Parts: sequence; C-alpha cells; structure tokens
Amino acid sequence: MAPRGLPEPVLIRGTGLLGTSIGLGLRAAGADVFLADPSPSAQAVAEDIGAGRPFPGDLVETPGAVASGTTPARTTTMPGTVVVASPPDVTGQVVIDSLLRFPGAVVLDIASVKGEIQRQVQAGVVDGILTEAQAQRYVGTHPMAGRERSGPVAARGQLFTAAPWVVCAGPETAPEAVVAAEEIARTLGATVHRMGAEDHDASVALISHLPQIAASLVSSRLQETPAASLALSGNGLRDTTRIAASDPQLWVQILAANAPDILQILYGVREDLDRLIVTMEDPTAPGARLDIAQLMAEGNAGHARIPGKHGAPPQAFAVVTVIVDDTPGQISAVLQDVGQAGVNVEDLRMDHSAGHEVGMLEISVLPGRKQELTDALSARGWKVV
Amino acid sequence: MAPRGLPEPVLIRGTGLLGTSIGLGLRAAGADVFLADPSPSAQAVAEDIGAGRPFPGDLVETPGAVASGTTPARTTTMPGTVVVASPPDVTGQVVIDSLLRFPGAVVLDIASVKGEIQRQVQAGVVDGILTEAQAQRYVGTHPMAGRERSGPVAARGQLFTAAPWVVCAGPETAPEAVVAAEEIARTLGATVHRMGAEDHDASVALISHLPQIAASLVSSRLQETPAASLALSGNGLRDTTRIAASDPQLWVQILAANAPDILQILYGVREDLDRLIVTMEDPTAPGARLDIAQLMAEGNAGHARIPGKHGAPPQAFAVVTVIVDDTPGQISAVLQDVGQAGVNVEDLRMDHSAGHEVGMLEISVLPGRKQELTDALSARGWKVV
Repeated sequence: MAPRGLPEPVLIRGTGLLGTSIGLGLRAAGADVFLADPSPSAQAVAEDIGAGRPFPGDLVETPGAVASGTTPARTTTMPGTVVVASPPDVTGQVVIDSLLRFPGAVVLDIASVKGEIQRQVQAGVVDGILTEAQAQRYVGTHPMAGRERSGPVAARGQLFTAAPWVVCAGPETAPEAVVAAEEIARTLGATVHRMGAEDHDASVALISHLPQIAASLVSSRLQETPAASLALSGNGLRDTTRIAASDPQLWVQILAANAPDILQILYGVREDLDRLIVTMEDPTAPGARLDIAQLMAEGNAGHARIPGKHGAPPQAFAVVTVIVDDTPGQISAVLQDVGQAGVNVEDLRMDHSAGHEVGMLEISVLPGRKQELTDALSARGWKVV
Repeated sequence: MAPRGLPEPVLIRGTGLLGTSIGLGLRAAGADVFLADPSPSAQAVAEDIGAGRPFPGDLVETPGAVASGTTPARTTTMPGTVVVASPPDVTGQVVIDSLLRFPGAVVLDIASVKGEIQRQVQAGVVDGILTEAQAQRYVGTHPMAGRERSGPVAARGQLFTAAPWVVCAGPETAPEAVVAAEEIARTLGATVHRMGAEDHDASVALISHLPQIAASLVSSRLQETPAASLALSGNGLRDTTRIAASDPQLWVQILAANAPDILQILYGVREDLDRLIVTMEDPTAPGARLDIAQLMAEGNAGHARIPGKHGAPPQAFAVVTVIVDDTPGQISAVLQDVGQAGVNVEDLRMDHSAGHEVGMLEISVLPGRKQELTDALSARGWKVV
C-alpha cells in the first residue's frame, strides 16, 4: 500500500547516500520510485540495490536553459513528487529545473541549508523564469541523518529512523507540498519538525556547522604532534574531534551556503577566544582566574541546555563502569546481567586506553538505579570501577 | 604482599577522587597507607571507604614557613613515600613541605601540569629552602584518569586500570623515586609513559587542554539558543561538547598552570579561525572554497593521526548499526547474537534521537567482518540500518 498524501510516481534526482536511502525506504512502503543521477554508475548501483527504476526521459541538466528562462524539454512520464537529492551547490538549480519540467509536481529538496535555495526559487519568480504557481509547489526539507559515510552503497532504507526531519514551509507554500514532504518523512520513520528556513539555518549553524568547524580546528593542530604525545589521547580528544573525519568537498558547500549565519557565531567564538588569550597571556593578573572560570562556567551552562535522550529534558544519568576483556561475548555477558537486574541502559559507550587489552564499558542508567546495578554486577563477579 | 620497590608506609596528602582512588588501589595491593586532607570530612569519607588510616601527625600547611625556609615540625611517623594529591594550585607548595618534613621519603605528585611544579622545586633549591638531595627525591607524575566526577565518594581502586600514567623524571631525579612512582602506577594497573615535564605539558596542552577549551567555547554559544533549535541536536554536537560539563574551578588551575603551552596552540587556532572568517565573509571570492576545503582537509589529516584502540595505529573500523527498542535486555540480546557470530566488538555506542523510543546501537568491527555480521544479525531478525 503506497503512502497516502504522496503524489506518485516519485522521482529522486541524485542517488547518493541520502537519495538512495529515500528510494529504498519509499519502495519498501510500496511507492513507485524513479531514479535519475548524472553519474550512470551511481544510478546503476542505486537501481541494483532496489531503490527505484530508471527515469524514462532525458534529464541532462541545462543551467544555461534555466538561466535564460527556456523551458526544459518535458518528458512523457510525469512524476507527482520530485525529491531533489543533488549535491548542495546545484540543488537550487535542480529544484528550478524540476519545477519547470514537471509543472504539476510537488518538488522538495533535502539539502542541509535552506534559505539560499528558497531565495533562488523566489528570484526565479522575480526574473520571470518561474510562475508563482510553480514556485508554490516547492518545499524545502532537511533530514538530519547524514553520517561519516557516503554514496549509494552505504544507503539503507532505515537511515532516517528516529531522525529529525525539518520541513521549512512558508506562507506561500502549497498545502499539498507540505503534506507530501511530511508523508515522506513519516514513511521513513523520521520525526517532523516544522520551522522557517531562516530559523532552520540559524539552528544548524549552531548545532551542526559550529561543532564541525571546532572539530576541524582542533584536529588541524594535531598534524605535527609527536606520536608519543598522541599516545596519551583519551576519549576527551576522540569525542571532540570525531566529526573532523567528514568530507571536505561536502562541507565546503554547506559552510559556503550558510556563511552569514555561521559568521555571526564565529564572531562570538573569536571574541571569547580573544578574551581567553588575553587572560592567559597574564594568568596571574587580578581577575584573570575569575575570567577563565567564567568562560568554563558559560560552557557548563550552554552544555546543560542540550536535550537528553528522546528529546527529554537534559538529565544527568549515573554511569556504572565495568572492566571487560577484549574478547567476543564479554560485553554481551555484562549486558545480559544488566538486563537480568531489570535495569534499563540509557546510554552506552566503550572507553579504550593504549597498551591494555581491556576496555571499560560505561553504562548510563537512571541515577536511582546506580547502586542496585553496581551491587548486582559486583555480585556476579564483574569488576565495577 | 606489598608492592616491591615502594618505600612504605605511603602517605597520601589530599583525599579527592584521585588521592582516595590511589589509596584504595594500594591498600588492595597490601600497602600500608596513611591519609591526610585539610578537609576533615573529605578525609573521614576516604577512611570510611577503606583508602587508608589517618596520619598521626599535624600536617597543617604553613606556606609562610615554606617561603621563609623554616623547616616544618617533623612527626614521629615517617612515610617512605608521599603522594601529593592536592588541588593543582597548591601542589608545588605541598611537595616542598613534604620534602622538608620527610627528608628521607620519595615525594611524588599527580597534578596534570608538571613543569610549573618542577620549577618550584628547583627554585626551592636556588633559594636555599631545599637541599639538592631533598629535591632529587621528588618525581612528578600524571595519571590520566580524571573523569567528570569528583570527590572521595566517587573513588574506585580500579580507576587507573588501563590508563596512561606519565612519569616525568629528569637527569637529577633519584632512581628510587622513579622506581617508587612506576611501582605505584603498575600496581594500580596503569601503563607507564616516560616523558620530560616539558614534553608532557606540551602534549596535554594539545590532547587535553585544547579539546576542553574548544568544548567550552562551542557550548558557550548554546546559552541563548531557542529550545526548538536544540531539539535538532545530534551526536555531532553531543560528542563535541561532552567535556564542557567539567568543573570550572579545577580547570582554571590547570589552564593557568599550563598557560604558555596552551597559548602557543591558541595562537594557531586563532590564525585558522581568522582565515576561515575572512574567507566566509566573501565565500564566492576566487579561492574561497579551496581555502575552506583546505581547512577541512587539515582537520582530516590531524584526526587521522589519533591512535586507535590499545595504542594501535589508527584503524578505520566498519560500523554496523542496529535498531533496538528502548527496553531492558534489548542491547544485550543484540550483543549476544554478535558474540555467537564470533565477531569481536571493537567499539560500541548508542545513538539517540529526539521523539522516538528506539535507539541505534553502533557496533564497530574489523572491516572484513562487517558483511558477515550484517548477514548474521539480519538472519536473526534484527533491523540492521
């Protein structure tokens, strides 16, 4: 049974990780999906893993045609919904191309910056390339499920399970476009968040783009660090820099598209950094220590506002740390005992250190259950740290 | 049986998280341990949980006496080893006091910045407060096992298991001081890293102090973010900011003590940040995108140098992501099936998203085992993303 409220067939333009995953998820839900990608090999992989059928029409992108207002050649197959999953810096162009080619279709995109694309569509109306009716059938969206992997081979229909999916409708957006976008998000198991494009871009500048920049700036300092120093690395460094492994080409497009919002935040960071540098240049001056403590306390305050699991209010879980040997089955044996104690695992992580073939399994539980769990695991012979 | 090479009894001065944990670990290994803390309640807790006996002597710290070169009153009980586990900004003073009170004892400290304390001891010799023989019985160490918890209640004898423990001996350090320090580290299950105090301080500035500052700077920006924006937070933000919850009072002392090394790094960060800001102020200028990509690529390069598990060369594990319900026993059931498939879990983490009562369990395995594990788990009915 196909998803209700979703005009079919669906055409997905761009078969990278996200486009292919959307195709897989929609096909699993019974939707009729066409695929189109400028790269024949990327498209072939996406077809092979079952993300959809090839689109029977020539979709060669003609930027010159869009710029000059020439209507692209139409095809006989008319999609009801077009999902633009192209690289960020051509998304606006492919959205406009799709609105022109398929004037009756809902067109949505999934790029991670929304204002710039909305402005390109509006400029298309001002310049007479698009009619207002065509532009109203566009809605910007952002599924927040990117990972450090890419390409159609990494695609999974369940990629969006439990992920936030932002839908940025404006007052001018056609209701059926909003319905179609939200139907796709829900069909794929995501949670819909409604938010204007400007609020979205300001939000991701802070919660996604700033952490990426910070991780890259910290990691960049490690380029010439002696190996003996890096051997002391712990989870503090690992966590802070994990996302620094991300794809530069993708991030250039994201950062450039959201430059004004990111800049406002970076100005604030530079002000704090300058303040810290001045203070640390004379750390025994009157007020210097208070100033450093203030910066750390501001970090505490901001950190405490990050929501907890499942969007619940931030909650301090208690951590029970168990030492486990590095052999198959050890971790599951611990967690089986945790399950038998009837205590729910709220969060979980491994903590490794250099030079020892053991790991520390950090089990987060509700604070009221910590002592009970510590006792239960100790009684079963586990080393609880 | 008491640890060999460790002159007893051991006196631990300072019964916070680390001092108390050292006491617990040494007592478990059969050593005779005395405790002393300026706070009677902290000391009482440490005694109650079995970290050692109260020291039978007056150890009121007399900074005036140290400064004037007056020898502090000696006690009849003479420790063979003194572990100074005081707050960082009084550690140097307590080290000198201990060298004076207990002229035959090995004195080691565990503060996280080493050069400043070494300089204070050397200045004591220059100023005629300490003899060279007394100063040679001091050795600086740094067990890298601090957590986001503090105080004696959180202490555990196993806290140092598999943690790096840096021992900073110089050419002047007495061999028995080095032996005693390394014996304590090994007795507590830590891995000894030998390194000069200057190299140590430069190392921790980069791998510990810089990540702390970055996490605080990023978190500080979240103080006035609307809740709707924070609801979109993912693991990128959570990981990058986790250590921003650390204690400001402790970190003021650490950052101030290591200011020169940290400053050199912050100057580099500021240069990169300034370059990024200038580029993003005109992201369509020639070369701008290349410049952003360069910054991200430098982050990639630095990140790739962080060693992997157990100090092995950095290794890209493959991640198998499994969707689990948020009920007791689910995670252990998955991991039991992983164990039965004979695949070792190299790393493990939970990934939560707002609004859904499910979690994603990310299981890192050797790349060659990924397909096998994916097939095995799918065959047992797990949703592998």
